[in-house]
Amino acid sequence: MSKLPNVTTSIFTVMSKMATEYNAINLSQGFPNFPVDERLTDILARLAKENVHQYTPMAGLPPLMNQIANLIQSSYKRTINPDLELLVTAGATQGIFTSILALVKTGDEVVILDPSYDSYESPVLLCNAKPVRVALNDDYTPNWETIEKACSSKTRMIIINNPHNPTGKILTEADFLELEKLLSKHPDIIVLSDEVYEYITFEEKHISAHTKDFLLNRCIMVSSFGKSFHITGWKIGYTVAPEHLMKEIKKVHQFLVFSVNSISQAAISEYLNVVDVNLLGKFYQEKRDYFQKLLQNSRFELKPCEGTYFQVTSYTNISNDDDVTFCKKLITDHGVAAIPISTFYSDHKDQKLIRFCFAKDNFTLESAAKKLCDI
Amino acid sequence: MSKLPNVTTSIFTVMSKMATEYNAINLSQGFPNFPVDERLTDILARLAKENVHQYTPMAGLPPLMNQIANLIQSSYKRTINPDLELLVTAGATQGIFTSILALVKTGDEVVILDPSYDSYESPVLLCNAKPVRVALNDDYTPNWETIEKACSSKTRMIIINNPHNPTGKILTEADFLELEKLLSKHPDIIVLSDEVYEYITFEEKHISAHTKDFLLNRCIMVSSFGKSFHITGWKIGYTVAPEHLMKEIKKVHQFLVFSVNSISQAAISEYLNVVDVNLLGKFYQEKRDYFQKLLQNSRFELKPCEGTYFQVTSYTNISNDDDVTFCKKLITDHGVAAIPISTFYSDHKDQKLIRFCFAKDNFTLESAAKKLCDI
Ligand SMILES: CSCCC(=O)C(=O)O
Ligand SMILES: CSCCC(=O)C(=O)O
Repeated sequence: MSKLPNVTTSIFTVMSKMATEYNAINLSQGFPNFPVDERLTDILARLAKENVHQYTPMAGLPPLMNQIANLIQSSYKRTINPDLELLVTAGATQGIFTSILALVKTGDEVVILDPSYDSYESPVLLCNAKPVRVALNDDYTPNWETIEKACSSKTRMIIINNPHNPTGKILTEADFLELEKLLSKHPDIIVLSDEVYEYITFEEKHISAHTKDFLLNRCIMVSSFGKSFHITGWKIGYTVAPEHLMKEIKKVHQFLVFSVNSISQAAISEYLNVVDVNLLGKFYQEKRDYFQKLLQNSRFELKPCEGTYFQVTSYTNISNDDDVTFCKKLITDHGVAAIPISTFYSDHKDQKLIRFCFAKDNFTLESAAKKLCDI
Repeated sequence: MSKLPNVTTSIFTVMSKMATEYNAINLSQGFPNFPVDERLTDILARLAKENVHQYTPMAGLPPLMNQIANLIQSSYKRTINPDLELLVTAGATQGIFTSILALVKTGDEVVILDPSYDSYESPVLLCNAKPVRVALNDDYTPNWETIEKACSSKTRMIIINNPHNPTGKILTEADFLELEKLLSKHPDIIVLSDEVYEYITFEEKHISAHTKDFLLNRCIMVSSFGKSFHITGWKIGYTVAPEHLMKEIKKVHQFLVFSVNSISQAAISEYLNVVDVNLLGKFYQEKRDYFQKLLQNSRFELKPCEGTYFQVTSYTNISNDDDVTFCKKLITDHGVAAIPISTFYSDHKDQKLIRFCFAKDNFTLESAAKKLCDI
């Protein structure tokens, strides 16, 4: 019997594969298709010929760890001790998996919002623990009342994703007040905050878990250079946690992967000297605005998008198909790939909504929009 | 309470750090200190400027997967289906961890030889399963009688490491006959074969699990380009397993890391066109012979070394210290770092033996030997 009987091929794999097969424009899986900053690839090309090919220390390359601490300082005015509170991981996915494996035990419960990104449930199940899914409100804001009702003495962890994939929602000060109230009643609950899109927010500023004193001692913050530097293939992320949690996370990391790709760590470390992550929000805001404008005269209805590089879209003016069927036809009949939103729900119930990734060059967005406007 | 209460800082971390602190010659942690093949770093430098920076498919970059299948074909005359039986991992460590997580369940038992490399027990414990340690014979050959006695209906997996770290032992045809006999009595036991030093053997040829028909349907073979191409920092390895096991391993991989470093995969894929892995054994045999010759007039006694790049060494002519203490003094008083063999035993009992890594340029080996001969 499988330990993960309900896991099938990831929708991201299915849709990206189908997109290739039908030569469709791929707005499904979330990855940029424009060139990486030449400054970063120049650093990488130079480092290839240097002495950066052996194991880095287990928790990460020391200069990179210092740079990440500086980044957190400059972004959020928070001082972390990189030796004790930081871990460089093989992407945010590994940070999430490792944190859950290290801290969640048999019989524990873990609150996961619904919808949510698809990589939180399986590690919880592998711990013989129970994912407790709590529905977001219809506007995708958290319903703190139902979250609180879902919490008990068994609850070990609440997983938040801010900005939120796939809905693009970001948490507000009011949300953090509610979270603080809830946590004050449950001293043993820790928070896993997946903030891989931390630098991709638009009208509203991102509020990181880093900025909340009440979380300092009980929150694991996970992020990814893949999203911030358009290098999803490099698989370099990082995890920040208070020492007592990080100690346990590192124990698992040591046997899970030991250390992560050395050249990529060295390159990112240098690049952090020259790059300004604060330009990223504006960059993607322009992409979002452009994509929305291009679809203005289509029959698709666009939902609000506060952050991430995803646009949730209704198609009920076009078809009554369920969202998986609609996505497949969108590829085969119209040459554009998207992700059905039902994927992100625990019950996979049809939402009549699909998600487009707009992290694409303008030509790609224009070509896709042309096809979408013709439907 | 910690899920891994007995895990402390890895001895490899401790010794490498101490070596740096005391400016000692580091023959402890296993990594080469000579330059990587220029053909490989040239490929990497060129690829840095190409379009290789986004997610590869989950199981690996398709051209690399085909090349690995070719490598296995040419090395072992075994045909694998890369789509169904192969996974590219973030180093062999991730392959081992992922395989155990996917296939070992609460209450299962896993046979691990004693001594053995330190990364097998923790993943077993994280599955709420029980590591059953079975002592090797005094000459470090497996004792098949005691292994058989340790097997029961609870046994899910036997982990072998061939060539063996730290002892350098390789398994013989007779060992595989014994393993076959044992497995024929236990239809549910699977084998995890850690073969990261598969291309580093000397007088005797390595016998891979790939070449044994009785293992085809029940063996997970793990390997690493870090060892074969002197790139331990790249963290690229691979896992081969029959489809029914690989299906489960991929499910865990998808959420553990999703995919691995894209540029490194692309570079190794090209390099496999030009490199001849069969030269590796000779290369390291010369290193071993040179290192052994350099220590001939020392008071250290060298054990036989059939494979890997490690030399196990007795120091009882020099000191009565336990091996951990001796290793520390070796750094502080004599400027050479090694690994105490007790580390690899479940009870950490003093063995009066230490391990030198000879994957170093000749100048380093000579400088170390000079210091060691002076003791
Ligand atoms: C790791 S594949 C999924 C990429 C992603 O973050 C998304 O498309 O939501
Ligand atoms: C991952 S650090 C350990 C390296 C190694 O394989 C060894 O020294 O035995």
